[in-house]
Amino acid sequence: MGENKKFQRVGRRMVGKGHVYELYEDELILPDKRRVYYDHVEHRGAAAVLPVLEDGKIVLVRQYRNSIERMTLEIPAGGLSHFGEPTDMAALRELEEETGYRGDKAELLLKFCSAPAFCNEKIDIYLVRHLSQAEQKLDEDEFIDVVIETVENVIRKIYTGEIEDSKTIAAVLAYAYKFC
Amino acid sequence: MGENKKFQRVGRRMVGKGHVYELYEDELILPDKRRVYYDHVEHRGAAAVLPVLEDGKIVLVRQYRNSIERMTLEIPAGGLSHFGEPTDMAALRELEEETGYRGDKAELLLKFCSAPAFCNEKIDIYLVRHLSQAEQKLDEDEFIDVVIETVENVIRKIYTGEIEDSKTIAAVLAYAYKFC
Repeated sequence: MGENKKFQRVGRRMVGKGHVYELYEDELILPDKRRVYYDHVEHRGAAAVLPVLEDGKIVLVRQYRNSIERMTLEIPAGGLSHFGEPTDMAALRELEEETGYRGDKAELLLKFCSAPAFCNEKIDIYLVRHLSQAEQKLDEDEFIDVVIETVENVIRKIYTGEIEDSKTIAAVLAYAYKFC
Repeated sequence: MGENKKFQRVGRRMVGKGHVYELYEDELILPDKRRVYYDHVEHRGAAAVLPVLEDGKIVLVRQYRNSIERMTLEIPAGGLSHFGEPTDMAALRELEEETGYRGDKAELLLKFCSAPAFCNEKIDIYLVRHLSQAEQKLDEDEFIDVVIETVENVIRKIYTGEIEDSKTIAAVLAYAYKFC
């Protein structure tokens, strides 16, 4: 896309290093030649899954989210284990670890950027059907409950504001609009 | 929600200060009493608008996003101008500034958290109909084109991956599922 060239990044300086995320100050030349500084948060990418059971219900995880200081209901998701990990593999791995359900085939549902205004986190969101029961294998710091809900119930919770997580809203509505 | 109490935040230390965002290291006590450190990105909140014209088409903005190094097609949105600004007012302001369309009434469509795993950014997403034409008033560093699209066309671009922005995917599908 030629238009990109109108913005030119001429510098990137780390202003803070977290455990998973890094904060940068990017220096850009705008189309009108002015120089501006934008925040940028760096992340290596993630995968998420919408797991649909044979009876049409979906498998969600309930966990505490420190940043927003509340329990959330979300689709299973997790960061890539290393740079370049295939996202369908990561999606099936996170599904099994977080919920104890195993899937064989992950169908791409959405390509998703959480917050393109300041962060490069990309999440490939997969649909996984034909699940079999395996065993939950949580990371040491994960405290996650599995919650099975009907699509209708999840959609009701989206419109009432009970479910606020971006990837969960997008995934469930993308599934319902296409398949229900 | 009593379950929140199982996680206790006992410290927050700034590790990087950007122009708009700040990166923190949060110290938490887990339910099993272990101590962990999580990244947290602080933001004051934002508002977004799905503007629908009388003929059913929607108004989008095309702009360059430095973090993901590409042009995007998104619904109009912006940060709150000050802490505590009513989000419906912010939504109508951003709509007019970015697109030149004016609305009188903003109906809440979604409560939305972009990335609850690490950031407290909340975006209230409003539906605005019955638009009148006013004048685009861009900020100094904004280079934005207004793009009018049918709902069907936007949804097609969501499923092909051309539109990746989380709030745009969620807003358009939430609107289409409920009203189309």
